[in-house]
Amino acid sequence: MNEFEIIKQYFTGHSGRKDVIMGPGDDCALLQMPPHTTLAVSTDTLVADVHFFADMDPVALGHRALAVNLSDLAAMGADPCWVSLALTLPKADEAWIRGFCEGFFELAEYYNVALVGGDMTKGPLSITVTVHGTLPEGKGLRRNGARAGDGIYVTGTLGDAALGLQQQLGNIEVREPHLAFVRNKFEHPHPRILAGQALRDIASSALDLSDGLLGDLGHITKASGVRAQLELEQLPLSQAMTDTVGQEQAWQLALTGGDDYELCFTVPEVHRGQLETALAHCGVKFTRIGRMVAGEPGVELMAEGKPHELNASSWDHFRGGE
Amino acid sequence: MNEFEIIKQYFTGHSGRKDVIMGPGDDCALLQMPPHTTLAVSTDTLVADVHFFADMDPVALGHRALAVNLSDLAAMGADPCWVSLALTLPKADEAWIRGFCEGFFELAEYYNVALVGGDMTKGPLSITVTVHGTLPEGKGLRRNGARAGDGIYVTGTLGDAALGLQQQLGNIEVREPHLAFVRNKFEHPHPRILAGQALRDIASSALDLSDGLLGDLGHITKASGVRAQLELEQLPLSQAMTDTVGQEQAWQLALTGGDDYELCFTVPEVHRGQLETALAHCGVKFTRIGRMVAGEPGVELMAEGKPHELNASSWDHFRGGE
Repeated sequence: MNEFEIIKQYFTGHSGRKDVIMGPGDDCALLQMPPHTTLAVSTDTLVADVHFFADMDPVALGHRALAVNLSDLAAMGADPCWVSLALTLPKADEAWIRGFCEGFFELAEYYNVALVGGDMTKGPLSITVTVHGTLPEGKGLRRNGARAGDGIYVTGTLGDAALGLQQQLGNIEVREPHLAFVRNKFEHPHPRILAGQALRDIASSALDLSDGLLGDLGHITKASGVRAQLELEQLPLSQAMTDTVGQEQAWQLALTGGDDYELCFTVPEVHRGQLETALAHCGVKFTRIGRMVAGEPGVELMAEGKPHELNASSWDHFRGGE
Repeated sequence: MNEFEIIKQYFTGHSGRKDVIMGPGDDCALLQMPPHTTLAVSTDTLVADVHFFADMDPVALGHRALAVNLSDLAAMGADPCWVSLALTLPKADEAWIRGFCEGFFELAEYYNVALVGGDMTKGPLSITVTVHGTLPEGKGLRRNGARAGDGIYVTGTLGDAALGLQQQLGNIEVREPHLAFVRNKFEHPHPRILAGQALRDIASSALDLSDGLLGDLGHITKASGVRAQLELEQLPLSQAMTDTVGQEQAWQLALTGGDDYELCFTVPEVHRGQLETALAHCGVKFTRIGRMVAGEPGVELMAEGKPHELNASSWDHFRGGE
C-alpha cells in the first residue's frame, strides 16, 4: 500500500464527533468549537530510542503516544476533542501500523477524541501528536497560581514507570507478582482526564508528571514564585515499589523517575474539603505530599521533620541520562 | 544551554496576539477563537534527507517548515493564527537553532502567527509543525466541490522548485541569471495566504501543490467525482524554466515536480469575472490550465487539442524517488 492507501484504510472513519466538519483527507481539518469555550492545544514528540525502544510493541506505543498528550490536556483541566498525528516511519510496515492504530484508537475512542489530520512520512521512527481540547472561558489549570500555604498533592503512586523502565533495562530486578504492574505503568500511562476536569475550580496550579516530580514541581515553584516543601515519607509508593527497592531508592525513583503522567497540583486550604469530594467522585486516589511556603523558587526535601539531601536531577533531553 | 533555557531564550516572547491567553511554557496553550468562526488545523512533518538536505541553511529551513504548513491554511482559505512546533535535533546547536528561529519567526511575524507551544527533543533531525487558522462559519475551500464545467486554475508558475532541486542534485544545469530564482523557489516557498482568502467565495475546490500538479489535481478529481482535462500549452512556466529545459521536460517538472506550494483551484464559469477582480486585488498571477469534465476521476493531458502521453508519476513518500 502507498501512503494514501494506508491513510485511508487505517486512519479514517473512526470518529462520529459532530463538531468535526472536515476530518482527515483535505488540506486542513475544519472544527467547530462550542460557544464560550477556550481552545487548549498541546504537542509532544516521541522519538525511537530516546523516549521508547524502537522494538516496543506498536499497540503499546500507539496508546502511549496519545496518552502522554492527553495527559497535558488533563493537567490543564480540559475536555479532549481532536488530535493530529504525524507519524514518521522507516518503512510502510502494515502490521506495525495496524498495531499502532489499535492502541491509538482504543484510547481515542475511550475519551471520544477524533483524529482530524496529520502526516505520514518516511524517516527515522518518531511520532508527534497534537491534541486539542476545550475549557469553559476563563478556566484552565496553570502552573503560575500556587501560593504560600497551598497544599501540594499528587494522584496515584510515583516512580512505578521508572521502575518499569529500569526493569526493562536490566538494572533492577522486579519479582512477581509485580512485573506486569510496573511494565504496564511504563507502557500504558493513563491520562488523568477526569481528575483534571474535577480540579478546575479547586486547584491553584497543576501539571502532569512527565520528567519527574522534582523537576516538574520546580516549574510550578518558578512560575508561581513560591517554594515547595516536600515530606518524603508522604510520597505515595506502590506495593511493587516498596517490595522491590529500599526507601532511599524508592524516593529517588518517585522524585526523578519521570513518565508517571500523574497530576501534581496545589490546593488552597479553603478548598480542601471540596477536593476530597471532587476526586472521590471520579475515583482517583490522591495524596498530600507537602506544602508551598514563601521563599526562593525550588523544592526542599524533608524527612523526619529535617532537611534531606538526595543526589537527584530531573530528566533533560539534551543533558540527561539517555 | 539545556532544553528549558533554549525554549525560553529563542521560542518565547515573539507574539503580541491578544487571543493567546497562555502561550508556550505551560501544559497547553490556551487560545480564544473569535465568535462565529471555524477552526482550521493542519500538520506537516519535514524529515532530514527525505524532505530537505540535513545541511540545509537553518534560516531557509525555518522558513520552509512554517511555509509549507501555512500553505495548507491558504489552500483552505483560512486566516492563520497560531502554530505549534515540534523540533527533533541531534544536538542542541545554539547557532543552528538561532538560524532556524530567524527564518521561522520572520515568516510567522509577517502573517501575525503566534508560536503557542511545541516540543524540543533529541533525535534524528525532523520538524513537525501544526498550524491553526480560522474561517467564517460555513466557509472553507475543500477538495470535493469541483463540478463538470469548472475551469482549473493555478497561481504562479509551476515546476521551478523541482528545477531548483534538480540543480542542487547536479542533475540539471541552471545558468545565470536564473540560479538564485530557482534555488529560492525551492528553499523559500511562499504560502498563498491572500489568494486563498480571496478565493473563499469564488472557488469550488482548492488545494496547494506539494506533491506535484498531476497527483494533487488527481485528489480533487477523486474527491469531487469529476475528470480533469489539462491543456499542457497553458501550464505557466517561468523564464528560468523555458531557458533551461525543453518543452517536454518542462511539462514533466510542472506536472510532477512537487514543492511549488502554489494553489490549484477550480472556479465555476459564473464566477470567472469575480475571480479576475479578487486575485488582481491581492496581486497574484494566475492561469487557467484546463477544465473539469464529466467522467472517471483522473487527469487527462491534452496538447495541440489531442491527448498527450507523459511518463510521469506523483511523489509518494513510500514508493517515490527519494
